[in-house]
Amino acid sequence: MQSLGCDVAALNTVHFSNHTGYGQWTGTKVSAQEITDLYRGLKLSYLDDFDMMLSGYVPGAPALEAVGQIAEDLKRHAIARPGSFFWVLDPVMGDNGNLYVAQEVVPVYRGLIRHADLILPNQFEAELLSEVKIQDVASLQGAIQVIHERYGVPHIVITSVSIPHDGHPASSLSVVGSTMTSDRRARAFKIVFPAIDCYFSGTGDMFAALMVVRMREAVWKNQQRQHGGGGAPLSETEAWISDDSVDALDLPLAKATEKVLASMHEVLTKTCQAMQAQVSKARAVAAVAEQETSNGVADEDVESKENKKLRSIKSRAAELRLVRHLDSLRHPKVEFRAERM
Amino acid sequence: MQSLGCDVAALNTVHFSNHTGYGQWTGTKVSAQEITDLYRGLKLSYLDDFDMMLSGYVPGAPALEAVGQIAEDLKRHAIARPGSFFWVLDPVMGDNGNLYVAQEVVPVYRGLIRHADLILPNQFEAELLSEVKIQDVASLQGAIQVIHERYGVPHIVITSVSIPHDGHPASSLSVVGSTMTSDRRARAFKIVFPAIDCYFSGTGDMFAALMVVRMREAVWKNQQRQHGGGGAPLSETEAWISDDSVDALDLPLAKATEKVLASMHEVLTKTCQAMQAQVSKARAVAAVAEQETSNGVADEDVESKENKKLRSIKSRAAELRLVRHLDSLRHPKVEFRAERM
Repeated sequence: MQSLGCDVAALNTVHFSNHTGYGQWTGTKVSAQEITDLYRGLKLSYLDDFDMMLSGYVPGAPALEAVGQIAEDLKRHAIARPGSFFWVLDPVMGDNGNLYVAQEVVPVYRGLIRHADLILPNQFEAELLSEVKIQDVASLQGAIQVIHERYGVPHIVITSVSIPHDGHPASSLSVVGSTMTSDRRARAFKIVFPAIDCYFSGTGDMFAALMVVRMREAVWKNQQRQHGGGGAPLSETEAWISDDSVDALDLPLAKATEKVLASMHEVLTKTCQAMQAQVSKARAVAAVAEQETSNGVADEDVESKENKKLRSIKSRAAELRLVRHLDSLRHPKVEFRAERM
Repeated sequence: MQSLGCDVAALNTVHFSNHTGYGQWTGTKVSAQEITDLYRGLKLSYLDDFDMMLSGYVPGAPALEAVGQIAEDLKRHAIARPGSFFWVLDPVMGDNGNLYVAQEVVPVYRGLIRHADLILPNQFEAELLSEVKIQDVASLQGAIQVIHERYGVPHIVITSVSIPHDGHPASSLSVVGSTMTSDRRARAFKIVFPAIDCYFSGTGDMFAALMVVRMREAVWKNQQRQHGGGGAPLSETEAWISDDSVDALDLPLAKATEKVLASMHEVLTKTCQAMQAQVSKARAVAAVAEQETSNGVADEDVESKENKKLRSIKSRAAELRLVRHLDSLRHPKVEFRAERM
C-alpha cells in the first residue's frame, strides 16, 4: 500500500516472529484491550480521519470484536459525508475446508460483515458466510446473492474459486465479484486465469492490500464518466455503489479486480521461479546431511533438524516476493479481463 | 526501505498509537524479553540471515541491551564471511542538549557502539559519546577522532551539525561523516546545505533508513573501481572499510550521504510547503472556536480542547511526507556535494 502512495497506519493484531505456517513461531497476540487502547490513542491525537480501513487476520473473537468496533466508530463519524469512509473486510477464517481461527470467530464475522463495504472471502469463507455449498456456477451465484441480501454487503470478491467455467481449461482458477444494485440484486463478473503450480503464502493479504488501492482509484476514475449528467459523484455516494444502470463489466469493482489480479499474476510467476531454485538448493544441502546420517556421522536429531530446516526454507520460499517486484505492483499489465457470468 | 527494494523484517521496540511528541499517546513498550523471544523465533525458522541491521529508538536500557545482543549474535555468525553483515546503529538519546531516553541508556550505548559498523548520532549524541563539546571545526574533528579511536567505530555520520563553515551562510546546516583508516585515523567530509525554516519530526529515522540502502549501494558500485588491481572486493572486506589510499571525498560513505541528503532535502521542502497550508487551516478553525469562547458560547474546556487539537494537527503536519513523494526517495537529484573539512 505504501509503495502505491498510501499513508498507512498499521495496527498489529499479532506480534509474531513469522507466520504460523512455518510450524513454529514466537511472540504474542494483541489483546482486545490493547487494540481498543491504540485506537483511543489515535483519536486523542486526532489521527483517526481515515478514508479506508482494511482488516485482516485476527486470531480470536474478542480481538475481532474490538476491530469491528473501530470500523463501526469510523463509519458512524462518516455518516454525514457519504462515501468518505470505506471498510474492506477480509474475513480470514480458513481455506480448503479447514478453519484456522477459533470456532467462535465465525459468528462474529457473520455479525460484522453487515457493516463492511467490501468483503474478500475465499471460496470456503464464502460458504461459511452464505451457508451455501459452492459447486458450480449456479450455487456460486446463489452464495453471492445470499451475502448481498442477508447481510447487505455492497461489494463482494470471492478471491479463489475452483469450479469449472465454460470455455476455459479445467485447471483454471477464477475470482468472482459483484456489486449489488439498489434492491440488493447481484451484478456478478468473473475473471478466469491459469493456475500456477506452486504453493504460496501471503496471497490473501496481497490481494486485499492491492484491492484497497485499486478500488479507490477505480471509483475516482469512473465517477466523471458515470455521473456526467449531474448528481453526486460516485466517491460521494454511500458505499460507492454504482447506479443500477451500470453493467457488471463496467463496475469499478471489476476494473479494480482486473488490476489486482494482473499484479498478483506477475508476482506469483516470479515468486514461483525463484522458489524452485531456492528449494533445489536446500534439498541438496539436506541430502548431504542425510548422507552423513547414514554414514553414522550424525544421529537422528541431525536428520530431524535438517527436515525442519528444509520445511522452513520451503515456507520462506513460498512468501510472495513483493518488494523485489515493485513495478508489478505499480504498473501491472492487465491480461485477464472480467467476463459476464 | 521497502520502496527502495529492501526486504525488511521490522522488530518494534514500542507499540504506540503515535510518537510521543504529540504530548499524549497510548500503547505499550516492548520488553527486553519479548525482543529476545522474537529473535529466537526468527532463528528457529531460519529467518535470521540478515545482510544488514538498523537499530533506532529503544526507550529503556534492558530493551537496548536485548537489541545489542541480537546485533552481536548476527555479527558473530558473520565472522567467517567478512562484510556479510553490517550494523547501522542510530544512538537515539536526545537532541539540543536534552536527553529523551532514561539516563542509564547512555552507558549502554557507549558499550554497544564498539560492535557497530556505522553510527548516526546528531551533534548532541556525538558529544555524549565522545565527551567532546562541539563548537567549531577543530572540536568537531576531535569528537570524530575520539569515536574512531576509543570505540573502533569504522564509519560515523553526525547528522546535524550547527557550527559555522567558511564560505557558507551562517544559517547553513551540515552533515559530517568519516570512515576511519586502518590505523583509526579519521577521513572526514562535510556536506553543507541550507536550513529549512520548519519543525519536522521523523528526520532521524528517515536519514537512517535511507543510509542503510545507499551505503550498501555505494559499496557495491565502488568495489570494481577500488579493487581493480585484485584482492577482495569492498563488499567482502570487514566492515566495508575502504583502503587507506581512498580519499575522504571518494568514500562510499560520502557518496551515500550525498544521496540521502538529496532525498531529505526534497521531502523536507515538500513537507514544509504542505505544513503551512495545514496549520493555517487549523488556526482558522481554532480562531472560530476562540471567538465562540469569548462570546460566552463555550467555556474554558472548549478552549483547551481546541488548543490541544491545534497542537496535534501541528505535530501531524510536521511528520515527513514520505509515501507521497516516493520519487524523491528513489531518484533524488544530488545538489549538495561532499567537501573536504
